[in-house]
Amino acid sequence: MYEKATSFTRDDRKRDLIEQFGRLLPAASVLHTEESLGPYECDGLTAYRQVPLVAVLPETVEQVQEVMRTCASLGVPVVARGAGTGLSGGALPLADGVLLSLAKFNRILEVDTVNRTARVQPGVRNLAISEHVSPLGLYYAPDPSSQIACSIGGNVAENAGGLHCLKYGLTVHNILELTVITADGERVAIGGGALDSPGYDLLALMTGSEGLLAVVVEVTVKLLPKPACAKVLLAAFADVESAGAAVGAIIAEGVLPAGLEMMDNFAIRATDDFCGAGYPTDAAAILLCELDGIEEEVEDQIATVRAILERCGATLVRVAHDEAERARFWAGRKAAFPAAGRLSPDYLCMDGTIPRRELPSVLKRMRALSDESGLRIMNVFHAGDGNLHPLILYDANAPGELELAERVGAQILELCVEVGGTITGEHGVGVEKIDQMCVQFASPELVQFQAVKAAFDPNGMLNPGKAVPTLQRCAEYGAMHVHGGKLPFAEIERF
Amino acid sequence: MYEKATSFTRDDRKRDLIEQFGRLLPAASVLHTEESLGPYECDGLTAYRQVPLVAVLPETVEQVQEVMRTCASLGVPVVARGAGTGLSGGALPLADGVLLSLAKFNRILEVDTVNRTARVQPGVRNLAISEHVSPLGLYYAPDPSSQIACSIGGNVAENAGGLHCLKYGLTVHNILELTVITADGERVAIGGGALDSPGYDLLALMTGSEGLLAVVVEVTVKLLPKPACAKVLLAAFADVESAGAAVGAIIAEGVLPAGLEMMDNFAIRATDDFCGAGYPTDAAAILLCELDGIEEEVEDQIATVRAILERCGATLVRVAHDEAERARFWAGRKAAFPAAGRLSPDYLCMDGTIPRRELPSVLKRMRALSDESGLRIMNVFHAGDGNLHPLILYDANAPGELELAERVGAQILELCVEVGGTITGEHGVGVEKIDQMCVQFASPELVQFQAVKAAFDPNGMLNPGKAVPTLQRCAEYGAMHVHGGKLPFAEIERF
Repeated sequence: MYEKATSFTRDDRKRDLIEQFGRLLPAASVLHTEESLGPYECDGLTAYRQVPLVAVLPETVEQVQEVMRTCASLGVPVVARGAGTGLSGGALPLADGVLLSLAKFNRILEVDTVNRTARVQPGVRNLAISEHVSPLGLYYAPDPSSQIACSIGGNVAENAGGLHCLKYGLTVHNILELTVITADGERVAIGGGALDSPGYDLLALMTGSEGLLAVVVEVTVKLLPKPACAKVLLAAFADVESAGAAVGAIIAEGVLPAGLEMMDNFAIRATDDFCGAGYPTDAAAILLCELDGIEEEVEDQIATVRAILERCGATLVRVAHDEAERARFWAGRKAAFPAAGRLSPDYLCMDGTIPRRELPSVLKRMRALSDESGLRIMNVFHAGDGNLHPLILYDANAPGELELAERVGAQILELCVEVGGTITGEHGVGVEKIDQMCVQFASPELVQFQAVKAAFDPNGMLNPGKAVPTLQRCAEYGAMHVHGGKLPFAEIERF
Repeated sequence: MYEKATSFTRDDRKRDLIEQFGRLLPAASVLHTEESLGPYECDGLTAYRQVPLVAVLPETVEQVQEVMRTCASLGVPVVARGAGTGLSGGALPLADGVLLSLAKFNRILEVDTVNRTARVQPGVRNLAISEHVSPLGLYYAPDPSSQIACSIGGNVAENAGGLHCLKYGLTVHNILELTVITADGERVAIGGGALDSPGYDLLALMTGSEGLLAVVVEVTVKLLPKPACAKVLLAAFADVESAGAAVGAIIAEGVLPAGLEMMDNFAIRATDDFCGAGYPTDAAAILLCELDGIEEEVEDQIATVRAILERCGATLVRVAHDEAERARFWAGRKAAFPAAGRLSPDYLCMDGTIPRRELPSVLKRMRALSDESGLRIMNVFHAGDGNLHPLILYDANAPGELELAERVGAQILELCVEVGGTITGEHGVGVEKIDQMCVQFASPELVQFQAVKAAFDPNGMLNPGKAVPTLQRCAEYGAMHVHGGKLPFAEIERF
């Protein structure tokens, strides 16, 4: 493990880095002034900020290797960064570390239409891939809400999902090959064009490893043919629990929607005010259910889903009658985050996943948490895969509110674990949820995670302090809870 | 790394093991006589045989932990075994090791219909899961040809596929959670009920790790609703290359068949003689294409596929007109291996995967290999995912024929690597293909594999000598090639 540079050695180290990087990279690709480093001080989790020692923007694989070798030889930790849209602080710099931006790796290298794959650099934006292959009738399936801005390398690091991952899978299900650079500058090829690959599945291991194992410098993604037909249903419910139950019923019936999203009344009203999506503002909850495939199949499934929704007590079921209305239905859902931003100076976007059958009870308990804390919680989420995105609204200028919001957030995540779910669906752990990893996992699992980390990065130079807590940190987190007279789970059980 | 016991200490070690296991397990669960160990001397790769020191058949998780602790303390390596149907020798015992059979872990523990999962013990047979949940309208998708006999634990170890994995994925895509016991007897829970899990993806890492990382003692599998309708098309071709090209054309058009299989003329005649499948015996190749879903979708896709097949030069296209004919079409395909067994005293079943676009050229080069070596090669394979299963027919009693067959097999696998494919589709590496791992991977990748192994099993006690070669072994294998005056790839290029 690296040791933190003292304030005395920090300047020396910075000078060393600038000098050595100066030999490897053009001057404009080595940033070291306070002003030029500003844009890199945080990612999408803006509550945490830290300026790095130096930021570098290499543009060839060889340069990344040289940067890693330099850092390894000087014992300086490295944090890799894609587009900086991550929501869990995975790209938060270290005060005594190097920030490695992949922004200049922005080229689509090859499209293979027979095998339906594209070989791209990690800095390519998610949506840019689909735009590029659209004339061929193809697209790249994972579509996180940030897809206009987020990069494919960051998607790999966080195993990003999106509105359509219920049917089309997460990033790990949609990539075939990676080229990565290890902490000591070695280039390793991972995965392959075939369905399976011999040896251990390093492709899956690397995906979602949050920059702790290696730096991704090339990605081969799968492309899919655009579906012939896509339609969306909107259903309103008089109570949130019925909407939650309808989600389980749709899946249990064997229908696999392309997307199945839920919004509670607070979210409905906020987004309708914001963008006029035409939602029923008096509903306690709405479901948006998209079905895609060939026309007959879609019509058949719409009839099936409509019957389920009505049986589950929907007060209204509407099918978007044309593409314009379909786009309007989705526009509201996609505007939920900006809409929340207009209602509150600050909000925390949580990300937990629960088994579908637990949706009704968890929604009820979240309401109790909101009442108790006095903080408003807006619920917008990928209901089909049980992936919750509660937005906890708070005011950072009101003393103690950020801490209260973080406490409520932690309680929501621990509630997810309690009902058999997990503390992240698609945003990763980063710095945000590292303490909840202690609730999610027991010691043997954490020890195994640390061993895997050491197998790639024995000196802990890559993104240290993120994603996987040390056992000591967990002991302290447990102690904190116990200090308040409660064990972690006892804390949850009062709701 | 463990050291091989000398013949002097072997008896002492055996006595120690029998005594210690005697305290943990009923006498009938500790096998140590030549006669009782006989059934464990090989798996489905019968060319390799080795009697272990001792075989144990625990029936509780705690007993497995105790067995592992005992072996760790005595420094005795362990090979875990499911049903012993593996085709790459992954369960081949070690002369100085313990064979750990999971045969008594044969219970289905829980079926959850809302989340559509089943929690099962590793010794449960693959087909037994689908049979058990069939009354609920559900099934477990991966269906290796050995599904009557093979166990789910072995499926996890080898990341098994099957006829339907083109559409429904491999084992790794159809499981959610594992409980495993590490080399030192620690119990570790892996994965979770949610779509994604925080921390590194140990679930994928464990799947396909061929018993080198831990012993699986419980598996939670996903269940799928049985498709409403399934139909199968049979198409005949006057040459193998056209059939191969048709496979690529079907996938490129955006159709995703439930299964897409190919057989060459030799396989067609052999199986038709064997079971009267009604195949056109004069065809150079046939394709079997199964489509499933709702009836309208299936009809629509049949029309699409028929048009593609005709465009690609099919001389005959038939749709099975009822369930009986559909079953007969598949019966021939499933009987291919026994049919080969009737034509030749021995055969090697190879397993390599190539990009679909390479099918025509690889089939041609395999024919040249057959002509050159004088050995008959029968081709039956999962064409849709480019997974080849050439059967190399030979006679073990004819001097040098096994060696010749193995050499031709190695050349086929190296040809797969050359065209961008891999040396295994679903059978694993085991002992059979360990040398080809040296062709598939460069040193940095192998070093990384070794590091991952060490992260789970630092002393190399679990299934040593399988799946991942040492660098030294690769150096020797490379040297062997160079010794013949050719580098590995030069060897391939003469075809």
